[in-house]
Amino acid sequence: MTSILEKSEKPIQNIAVSAASGLICKACGALHPISPAHVCDECFGPLEVTYDFSNLDPVKLKKQIEAGPRDIWRYAPLLPVQPHSRTLSGVGYTPLQRAWNLAAKLGIDELYIKNDAVNPTHSFKDRVVAVALAKALEFGFDTIACASTGNLAGAVAAAGARAGLKTYVFVPASIEPGKILSAAVYGAEIVSVDGTYDEANRLASQVADEYGWGFVNINLRPFYSEGSKTLAYETAEQLGWKLPDHVVAPIASGSLYTKITKGFKELISLGLVADQALPAMSGAQAAGCNPVATAYSNEAGEITPVRNPTTIAHSLAIGSPADGYYSLQIARQTGGIIEQVTDAEIIEAVKLLASTEGIFTEPAGGVTLAVLKKLIKEGKIRRDEKTVVYITGNGYKTQSALEGEYNLPQPITPKLSAFEKLLG
Amino acid sequence: MTSILEKSEKPIQNIAVSAASGLICKACGALHPISPAHVCDECFGPLEVTYDFSNLDPVKLKKQIEAGPRDIWRYAPLLPVQPHSRTLSGVGYTPLQRAWNLAAKLGIDELYIKNDAVNPTHSFKDRVVAVALAKALEFGFDTIACASTGNLAGAVAAAGARAGLKTYVFVPASIEPGKILSAAVYGAEIVSVDGTYDEANRLASQVADEYGWGFVNINLRPFYSEGSKTLAYETAEQLGWKLPDHVVAPIASGSLYTKITKGFKELISLGLVADQALPAMSGAQAAGCNPVATAYSNEAGEITPVRNPTTIAHSLAIGSPADGYYSLQIARQTGGIIEQVTDAEIIEAVKLLASTEGIFTEPAGGVTLAVLKKLIKEGKIRRDEKTVVYITGNGYKTQSALEGEYNLPQPITPKLSAFEKLLG
Repeated sequence: MTSILEKSEKPIQNIAVSAASGLICKACGALHPISPAHVCDECFGPLEVTYDFSNLDPVKLKKQIEAGPRDIWRYAPLLPVQPHSRTLSGVGYTPLQRAWNLAAKLGIDELYIKNDAVNPTHSFKDRVVAVALAKALEFGFDTIACASTGNLAGAVAAAGARAGLKTYVFVPASIEPGKILSAAVYGAEIVSVDGTYDEANRLASQVADEYGWGFVNINLRPFYSEGSKTLAYETAEQLGWKLPDHVVAPIASGSLYTKITKGFKELISLGLVADQALPAMSGAQAAGCNPVATAYSNEAGEITPVRNPTTIAHSLAIGSPADGYYSLQIARQTGGIIEQVTDAEIIEAVKLLASTEGIFTEPAGGVTLAVLKKLIKEGKIRRDEKTVVYITGNGYKTQSALEGEYNLPQPITPKLSAFEKLLG
Repeated sequence: MTSILEKSEKPIQNIAVSAASGLICKACGALHPISPAHVCDECFGPLEVTYDFSNLDPVKLKKQIEAGPRDIWRYAPLLPVQPHSRTLSGVGYTPLQRAWNLAAKLGIDELYIKNDAVNPTHSFKDRVVAVALAKALEFGFDTIACASTGNLAGAVAAAGARAGLKTYVFVPASIEPGKILSAAVYGAEIVSVDGTYDEANRLASQVADEYGWGFVNINLRPFYSEGSKTLAYETAEQLGWKLPDHVVAPIASGSLYTKITKGFKELISLGLVADQALPAMSGAQAAGCNPVATAYSNEAGEITPVRNPTTIAHSLAIGSPADGYYSLQIARQTGGIIEQVTDAEIIEAVKLLASTEGIFTEPAGGVTLAVLKKLIKEGKIRRDEKTVVYITGNGYKTQSALEGEYNLPQPITPKLSAFEKLLG
């Protein structure tokens, strides 16, 4: 099967050259050319994409974005991907839902849910994978792969199918059956690893080195993670090119959280928003896997890994978060808080979101929402702060998390009298 | 909890008055005013909404649509809803994905998948419910309800939650557990009926009469079903205001299929497309519940109900389809075919769609795709026909349908040597 690289999915109307100019080491600041590298060869620090925005005119750029496709590629100049490789259409530009009912219940004036459960494979991972896949095709990889707690497996498998690439996904054997099935149905090879996510990830790193495959969250990580910036761009655009006052986002590896922040920063420096200050960036973790929240509340400088995560929020069960250190810094610099919640609070929050706003999220979304609830209750998010919460995955893949929560009713005979008896 | 009627979810920028002018009986043509009625009081025929398009200028209308919100409300003038009650944002405007890989595999030049699995509750039912809910609020109902094979239950429950209305869903006890759970999580009252969908539906009709609730697919049906027209509008708009040559859509009650056709018809009569002829409208049913396909192949004038549907495509298991007769007429008038496929063909098609296009659909989508495959193979859809297939629901709610289809691999220890052994 030929790759879709040669035949873009749609005629691309807004050929926009990327402003990406290189890779920069987050630790020592050394510059590197764009290549499938993720570690600085001088200090072993993590690399990220850097941009030269000097040629971008904010008025023209805003116009171009608004006329662009209804997916993440409307922000192409701000992503590290060349026009010819923008392959996966239909990813992103998800609804920012004003949460009237939930806001009233929690005691806050203006609350929005960014609902990424409606992406093609129903989690925010489609964003990062779309960027990584485009880059994998540019670099000429014939196999893409990932280590995953579940959602990423589905996103990579679906993207691999669309691109006609060989696809491998490495998952801890403990993830929800629905998430394994969803990767398998797309035709990916599943490698089930008897161990934690961190162990599956370490094995995947070795395989990346040995086999030269494009692991979206390992050797393609600097590009992959840039995809999360689109959550910030969309939020600002959907608010009328304004930043929120406060944000609550989940923290697993910390990549999503740090890149949303990077996205907001770029909007400020580009002049696409009039705001001068970042939102307060609050982060959410499960009590069963809380390395960043613990470091935050202990005012620690470093993250102590959690060896054996035990939480129903499998998507967030990363005990050794690659961007944990940077997440801590962001929370402290922006006046955000990194908080943790129990499994019971998570389930309660999943139900609350569904029953007030009609959004059924996976436990990770429950973590974020339960933290929001806690921060409002403790006065750490004020009533007048315009707040955005990121819901990053849907509840259908993780139905087992709600097992026993609903006593399904006894069937009645199809007669009005039986119904009347039921109503009582 | 107050209804969202009083506080529209977003400032509505394009206040567009609906062109709906009344209800018309599909059987005798009698006109009725807009009201919560679904049956003609002269002949007991089914009512549908009729419009007065004489004041609509196509150039202005197109401009207005293109500047409208990115959901079904961009087509508000063509829907039977007043501006103040357009409440549920974020529904519809789903991707029309060019299916390069699948097209190559099936032997057709230009194939598109309209992917409605990415609606808020992951099926096309969000469209019809959004219209019905708006109307329920206009009419002053305080309770909304439905009879459902599953997807509708989730859509109604979620919409009821957002609107702050009391919500009841009537389902046959045999539906997938995931679909029941998803309605329960939104806080709806579930009425599980020991019987077929048709029996649950009959009970619901009695309850509608007795209790005066707004049943979206019974007394609100004329408005509800109009929501499906947006699938036609979006398809045409996404193809650059052109109609496809051939369409394959699933047939359950026949409402979706007939209303997509109505949508295309309206675009022609409004002059929003230059086309003069309707696409060939082909319909898809499961062999285990095939009343319309059977009537089609027997060249029968009437539909013989299927008393006990037995198919894994529960969403399509309506043995006594309300719009079956009209579906038959449309297929014959447009040169479409109504075809049926077995459960084995359905599962194979679900896998094929996932592994070529990265879209994981429920069995209903497999029905549609398997019929497409059959029609292409038999030369009934020609290679040069620009074809659109409607995928109306996602696979995560119906994982049980694939049970045993994938032998999940044995876990390996997290060591490179174990992986190398696995690769062989």
